[in-house]
Amino acid sequence: MTEAEAFVPGHVTGFFTIHRDDDPTKAGSQGAGLALTDGVTVTVRPAEETSVRCNDVPVEMDAVETVLDTLQATARVDGQTPLPIGSGFGVSGAMALGTALAVNEAFDRRLSENELVTIAHGAEVQAGTGLGDVVAQARGGVPIRLEPGGPQDNLLDAIPARGPIEYHTLGELSTEEVISGDTDLLDQAGKRSLSRVVEEPTLSSFMRASRQFAREAELLTPEIRDVILDVNEAGGDASMAMLGKTVFSIDGGLSAAGYEPSTCRIDSTGARLLD
Amino acid sequence: MTEAEAFVPGHVTGFFTIHRDDDPTKAGSQGAGLALTDGVTVTVRPAEETSVRCNDVPVEMDAVETVLDTLQATARVDGQTPLPIGSGFGVSGAMALGTALAVNEAFDRRLSENELVTIAHGAEVQAGTGLGDVVAQARGGVPIRLEPGGPQDNLLDAIPARGPIEYHTLGELSTEEVISGDTDLLDQAGKRSLSRVVEEPTLSSFMRASRQFAREAELLTPEIRDVILDVNEAGGDASMAMLGKTVFSIDGGLSAAGYEPSTCRIDSTGARLLD
Repeated sequence: MTEAEAFVPGHVTGFFTIHRDDDPTKAGSQGAGLALTDGVTVTVRPAEETSVRCNDVPVEMDAVETVLDTLQATARVDGQTPLPIGSGFGVSGAMALGTALAVNEAFDRRLSENELVTIAHGAEVQAGTGLGDVVAQARGGVPIRLEPGGPQDNLLDAIPARGPIEYHTLGELSTEEVISGDTDLLDQAGKRSLSRVVEEPTLSSFMRASRQFAREAELLTPEIRDVILDVNEAGGDASMAMLGKTVFSIDGGLSAAGYEPSTCRIDSTGARLLD
Repeated sequence: MTEAEAFVPGHVTGFFTIHRDDDPTKAGSQGAGLALTDGVTVTVRPAEETSVRCNDVPVEMDAVETVLDTLQATARVDGQTPLPIGSGFGVSGAMALGTALAVNEAFDRRLSENELVTIAHGAEVQAGTGLGDVVAQARGGVPIRLEPGGPQDNLLDAIPARGPIEYHTLGELSTEEVISGDTDLLDQAGKRSLSRVVEEPTLSSFMRASRQFAREAELLTPEIRDVILDVNEAGGDASMAMLGKTVFSIDGGLSAAGYEPSTCRIDSTGARLLD
């Protein structure tokens, strides 16, 4: 048993629907989003006692604990990321998936990619911190989640796109709070946006469908709307990350509007072991 | 309309089965293989007349022509690759898939990744030059093809692995000739090897299953067997690329045995547009 390291891209969801199921590996969401080169590098070291850190700070992450339990591993898990936590970048999903990949390697568990993604997805759904980030992060690129659930149940497609992404974060939003409330409005809006992107799988149609969703699902706060409008006025294309107080743009729009955004790119690779 | 560029990894298949279907997008193969960082960079430029070149030499590639016809594009297609052609690296599949991705971008065809992979896969099957390379090249890594066909029909998993790959090529083998003959023996051997890898999805089990397949399907020529034995004697792990007179090793085994192999790595990303 040695230490192992995995990288998992961040993921901003543009729109989504919610699918509940007693089996957390079948529950999840439809929707679409962007995998980002800003992500989480997860290091797993076999240890006497389990501990989880993110950017050197001890954290409680139920999804990570569940992954470790499922894989019967006692380990020190260290995540390093430039992404803000709780702001719609799928950091908890990345921690869970990175832990699954690295534990499989470090503890020689001999599971397949689908099995590891299923474990991380189920753990994330059970923890209530995400519904579709893990399967999207596993694939990379601009995944369209046509059907919910883990790899044995879902159906993915993707928008063939690459390029720079900017993001600007105003604060946190609780995924758990939104997805545990009444979600009829959200589901209907999510389905409409999904149809739109399936009909025209381009990046600009994804951005339009995402803005439409944020508005129709009534998730757009006034301060986020203001930033998006600023970007539009500067001739750019922006929307809101689900779920966080984060605005992302695909064409340098946040910079053009005078913000000082973080910049990265679409990550085509998806989650992978590092050397 | 502008020019566009895509990279598609090479792909060596370790073992496979053959599934015929009147619909070439449903036909294909089960099996497993390695996506390689040595691949094909495909550039597509709208032109008055269609022409296809590989490493600056005009080539006839039915799969590429079919992709261009399907996408109603008249273009100059240029492939650049360090890989030998006809030697089991999926160069024709890479050319077809790279053409599909780049044409979609250059001609603004607005198709999804799955649609483009389906078109390239169907074209490759129709041309008789490959059965599973395209879907594996689209995914990257070490794909296991659990079910045959394009993305709407198949089911993929993967071995979570990375690392260096060496290969040594002795000459060409006709894919068309092997897969158009009597293939009962091959199918049975392919199914046994697939079960083995599904049971233990590791790189070393993949190598064992691949050698077992090459032997049982009676595809191992004496000269290829000699190279594999040389590698084994040097303490390394090697097998034969399906279908080509090519030996690949995962642990520097060809170098250790005194050959002067080409070297690359497992490509985790899969086919993608380039900037």
